[in-house]
Order: sequence, then C-alpha cells, then structure tokens
Amino acid sequence: MRYELYYWSEIQGRGEYVRLALEAAGADYVDVARSKGGEAKMMKRMGAGVTPSFAPPYLKAGKLMIGQTANILLYLGEKEGLAPKTEAGRLWTHQLQLTIADFVAEIHDTHHPIGSGLYYEDQKPEARRRSADFLAHRAPKYLGYFEDVAKANKAGKGRHLVGARLSYADLSLFQVVEGMRYAFPRAMARLEKQLPRVVAIRDSVAALPRIRAYAESPRRIPFNQMGIFRHYPELDGG
Amino acid sequence: MRYELYYWSEIQGRGEYVRLALEAAGADYVDVARSKGGEAKMMKRMGAGVTPSFAPPYLKAGKLMIGQTANILLYLGEKEGLAPKTEAGRLWTHQLQLTIADFVAEIHDTHHPIGSGLYYEDQKPEARRRSADFLAHRAPKYLGYFEDVAKANKAGKGRHLVGARLSYADLSLFQVVEGMRYAFPRAMARLEKQLPRVVAIRDSVAALPRIRAYAESPRRIPFNQMGIFRHYPELDGG
Repeated sequence: MRYELYYWSEIQGRGEYVRLALEAAGADYVDVARSKGGEAKMMKRMGAGVTPSFAPPYLKAGKLMIGQTANILLYLGEKEGLAPKTEAGRLWTHQLQLTIADFVAEIHDTHHPIGSGLYYEDQKPEARRRSADFLAHRAPKYLGYFEDVAKANKAGKGRHLVGARLSYADLSLFQVVEGMRYAFPRAMARLEKQLPRVVAIRDSVAALPRIRAYAESPRRIPFNQMGIFRHYPELDGG
Repeated sequence: MRYELYYWSEIQGRGEYVRLALEAAGADYVDVARSKGGEAKMMKRMGAGVTPSFAPPYLKAGKLMIGQTANILLYLGEKEGLAPKTEAGRLWTHQLQLTIADFVAEIHDTHHPIGSGLYYEDQKPEARRRSADFLAHRAPKYLGYFEDVAKANKAGKGRHLVGARLSYADLSLFQVVEGMRYAFPRAMARLEKQLPRVVAIRDSVAALPRIRAYAESPRRIPFNQMGIFRHYPELDGG
C-alpha cells in the first residue's frame, strides 16, 4: 500500500513528524501537496467525507483518512513497527508523543503569542515576553522531562525513549532538538549541557541510514521562517 | 477494578474530560487528589517509575499508569465502551478528541498568552488582544468544524459526533460548550446561533441520567477563576 501524506509543501511543520516516521520505516508514500496542484487537492479533500480534518497533516492509508499528527503516528507506530506491540508500550509511546505535541504548540506560540493569523511583525513585543518565559521555564521543563524519561529507561541504553527499540517518539524528539537548535541556537546550546541523554537520542536517530539519506535528500525541506521553528535572533535569549 | 484518577482537586481543568468519561460509563473510580494529602501523593507519584507524566491528569488502571488526557480517553473509550470498536472508528474518535485538546489549549491561552506561570494581571493587555483574535477567528473555526462533523454524521441523528452511539468525543464537546458559555457568555450566545447541532449534542449529553446526577453532585467542581475556562468580562467581546 502506498500512503498518501497531505501537508503543506513548503514547511516541515507538524507534517515532519509523519514524514520522519514514514522515512524511518522505509514506507512507500507520496507527499501529495508537493506535486503540481497538490495543495489545492489537499484543501479540497480535507473537508470532504465523514471524517474531515481540522487542519493538515492527514494521511490516506487505504480507505482510512487519518488526521492529527499524534493520531497518524499512533496508527503508523502499529503498522510500521515504530511502537511496542503491548498495550502498555503503545499507550506510553503515545503519551510521550502527546507531550511533544504540547511542547511544539508552545514553541509555535513563542513567535505567535497573540494570533496565528497575524504577522510576527504585529506581535513582536508580545513574542519577546513569551519567548523569555518559554526559555526560562517551559523549554527546560519539557526537555528535562524527556531527559528524565531517557534516564529511567535503562533498556534504551541511551538511544531510545521507549524500551530497547526505535519508536516514533525518538524520531519526534530528534525533530524537536533539531528545531530548537535552529530557532534558539544560543539558548539551546546552554540547555543542552543538562541534556546528555536527549542529545544522545538525537544523535542516534540522525545516524540511522534511512534518516541520514532522507536528511540529505530534497525530500527534507530545510527549516525556514514560515514553519513552527523560526529563528528570530531577538527571541533567542541565550 | 477501581480506577484512580490523579488531578488537581480544585478545578475542572483537563481532568474533567476524564471525570466525565468515568461518570458516563458508571465506572468505579476515586478522585485521589480530592482526599486529604491527595495532591502531595499526586505530585510524588507523577514522576515515579518508568512512565512518569509531564503534568496531571494521569490515571492508574490496574498496573497501567496513563498520562495525557486524550491518551487516557483512548484507553477508557475501549475499556468502557465509549468509542467504536473498529479501527476506523477508534482513530476517528481520537482525532476529534485531539482537535478538542488543541481548542482547549487555545482557550487557556486567551487569559495566559505570555506565560502559564504568570498571573493574569501581568498579561492583561496581551490577553485582550489574544481573546479578540480568538473570538473572531479561532472559536468560530473550531466550533464550526464540530458543527460540520455533526452534520456529516447522519447516523448520529443530531445526538452524536461519531456513529449512532455516545462516545467520549460527545462528552468532551459538552464540556467545551459549557466552558465557553461560562468564560465568554456574550460571544458564545452569538456563536451558538450558527451551531444548532453542537448545542443539540451538548443537550443530549446533559440529559444523560449519569451526567445529570454527576452535575448535581459535589463531585462536579463548579467553574471558577483558577481553571482553563475563566470569566473575565473584559475578554468577552460579545
């Protein structure tokens, strides 16, 4: 079966967590919106049928149309071997993903604290205040949590958040570290000193042959100033 | 089996979506933090073991410790008959819940756009801007989405979001409508004119004997100015 991923064609955004899972699994998929007329098709199909999505990304898998990033990963985790097969392991991996999703939403709001439909330039003072609070309190709390999870997971041997194998939670943590490094290089360099296990998981994912091939391919869209992770030097407290 | 719910004792908050599911199912549960010393126990257990939670709520179900509201509902949906048994139905119900979770996070940020650790009084001008944007754009978009979902679900006969039976998504939609009415009574009265199906689902949930009994009991904590839904008249654009 060839999966069809529907997501914005010019950003990593929330779609990137799905792309990483598909790539790591070596799954057959097409990134629909990146072909001609693809975004129009995406917007049209998004609201169609009895299971419309509120926003991209969504995934067509056979007859299923699945929306919400974490929900797509829940599905792919089972189908593509990117999560444990036990109920406890499945729920735990999903719990980690949902916590990453909360973190990502807060990262987005550092540059858009007032409204996602407004320009950054129209909310700069508010973005400075929110980013300062985020870097002082929220980012250390989230990243410290994942450091603690990695520490408690003896079976992971410093390479995995869940048990002894790769899961989509590892892939998503990799993406968050990459994004934080892009958006807040000074602050992240400081934070990483307390995060040896998080960095080790990031490195372990980066070294996977399929992920390395993906990162070097044109399929991986570079970070840019339209996505969730944006680099505004004035927000990077360092 | 008696479930143990761990959540803050003085607010509905995110724990309320779990409470509503447990109550609607007639499940045996204890709201641990509401007994003497319960919140201290909650904070201690939250970080213990190999599956710590980032924040309450979390649920103890036998040997499982499950965190993240939507993840708890995914579990309860299956165990307590509050979601379809098919894969497609299970994923769809969860997708709706995750969209409600996104909506709830945005509702929270109307009064805390700069930092969740700061007082409302320290971010009032920003809260006014964010609330105005929220009421003009985000609330109509989210609520309109659920109206569309209810409309597309012919089997629900105006009472359910998913198929022909009650699901945790209905319960959560009920809670969001109740909360929006409390927080933004003027704006919500205006919005509801375009939301007959959403209101019908809210009414249908409110009329369930177990939910009615719960709402009239001391187990239901009233809305207040510490929770996610807060009523600040200056934010209620009307």
